[in-house]
Amino acid sequence: MPGYPSSLTKLVVLLGEPLGHSLSPAIHNAMFAHLGLDYLYLPVEVSRENLAVVFNGLRRMNVAGCNVTIPHKVAILEHLDELHPQAAALGAVNTIRFADGRAIGYNTDGEGFLRSLAEGGINSVAGQEILLLGAGGAVRAIAMSLAFAGAAAIHLCNRSGDKADRLAAEINAKIRPCASTVSAESGALRQVVARCQLLVNGTSLGMHPHEQALPIAAELLAPHLTVADIVYNPHTTRLLAAAMERGCRVVHGLGMLLHQGALGFALWTGIEPPLAPMRAAAEEALAAREGRG
Amino acid sequence: MPGYPSSLTKLVVLLGEPLGHSLSPAIHNAMFAHLGLDYLYLPVEVSRENLAVVFNGLRRMNVAGCNVTIPHKVAILEHLDELHPQAAALGAVNTIRFADGRAIGYNTDGEGFLRSLAEGGINSVAGQEILLLGAGGAVRAIAMSLAFAGAAAIHLCNRSGDKADRLAAEINAKIRPCASTVSAESGALRQVVARCQLLVNGTSLGMHPHEQALPIAAELLAPHLTVADIVYNPHTTRLLAAAMERGCRVVHGLGMLLHQGALGFALWTGIEPPLAPMRAAAEEALAAREGRG
Repeated sequence: MPGYPSSLTKLVVLLGEPLGHSLSPAIHNAMFAHLGLDYLYLPVEVSRENLAVVFNGLRRMNVAGCNVTIPHKVAILEHLDELHPQAAALGAVNTIRFADGRAIGYNTDGEGFLRSLAEGGINSVAGQEILLLGAGGAVRAIAMSLAFAGAAAIHLCNRSGDKADRLAAEINAKIRPCASTVSAESGALRQVVARCQLLVNGTSLGMHPHEQALPIAAELLAPHLTVADIVYNPHTTRLLAAAMERGCRVVHGLGMLLHQGALGFALWTGIEPPLAPMRAAAEEALAAREGRG
Repeated sequence: MPGYPSSLTKLVVLLGEPLGHSLSPAIHNAMFAHLGLDYLYLPVEVSRENLAVVFNGLRRMNVAGCNVTIPHKVAILEHLDELHPQAAALGAVNTIRFADGRAIGYNTDGEGFLRSLAEGGINSVAGQEILLLGAGGAVRAIAMSLAFAGAAAIHLCNRSGDKADRLAAEINAKIRPCASTVSAESGALRQVVARCQLLVNGTSLGMHPHEQALPIAAELLAPHLTVADIVYNPHTTRLLAAAMERGCRVVHGLGMLLHQGALGFALWTGIEPPLAPMRAAAEEALAAREGRG
């Protein structure tokens, strides 16, 4: 395999705007090299108005698949030929595989999150109660996957109650009546936390450069909880540090990123990638980013 | 600069079909690395029927320009916004530069050939007589550049006289009345050779794996000639070996390839690349190809 792309090199294209901070090029290109696969992961920044024409061109090139990120996860749907059921329920796609000229859409965010829970000792969420903070795209994916996976109750807490109400109603209608909302008032939260095995921060609070922000009062964290964060920069958020201090098991945000990527990698290459070198590549890229300031 | 492409990486795309044997990815990617430029040269194999949709997609991506090769050098014209005069005269484009959303077509083959002649001691063809063997695309580009550069007479010799006749008529009409055809019969060729300073093989005779083929009888090579070959694999063709044996100066085919590439490189990056590392990269890629069989 040459050190530069040839006409035989399979491309995997990341579509979004902006893409400056994505770790995916570093992770996937490191894994292609690690496994000796003649693939190239190529970030392509594309605006909403150009998405259709760029996607039409790409599907006639030697492209194995795509990752799709903000702001195209919903807009891409009309260009696909087929949807995986979870992506269809979610109405958002983050991974595309081309097969025999067909474009098939997946969403690996929720399943990636479920796989990352093993880090916190949770191998199944069936029968569990879960408190989810936030109501954005990541929370949508996680909540639907939790519902598909048999969670007993999903409690959604968001500053704007409307968005959480709509998501709960959607889950209850589309999947299973297991979702409800909870007010951000601490008395209500304390009661819900007491019944939950898992607490998930699905907001961006605590993300660099606002490391000091906490999505929930630390005093509400009880030691019976596993606490998961979707924020991966910093690696250990203030929430996870507080949770560990109070005796909780924790799940770092990097796990979800790696597992959703590994699911895509397997779809494009047919090979389930080993997690350890993926994690090393991600950590190296994060460190290099810090170095660049 | 990261070792993998980011969303800021400028792409240069090679369009053609097939592209398996192109040296350009090796040469340009080596030069981007050598000069620390965040560019990626990406070969994209595309069929005639998909050329338009792929090109439309590429021009909305972070693409600095393209190389165009067989079979798209003519078909690409209708997708361009502007043509350099030499590309317009030739009716064929091998290099595209994107500037402010406009696609500008160039043909660097002829100028690349002229620059390579310095290797054989020819710094100007003004006033010279030249014998050109063949009448294909490369000969068209070379002949028109020779005419633009003031050659006194261009003698075209091709097995199929018709094609050479049409090319001579086109040059005489479009540029300057300096072109004529000569029969491949050795008496006629000997008379022409006696008046010429330069003989150019523009056919593929002598190219690997048919190294033994000669485009002209060796006995016609006289020591006053500079003999140039467009074939670059093998590096020294049987024609060039025979020419050296008979005391001629020679111009290797690799020079034209490197100079046409250097002209494109300067159009995409604004930087005139140094020839020595370009040559080293090309020789390394040729050697690697031999190694692969």
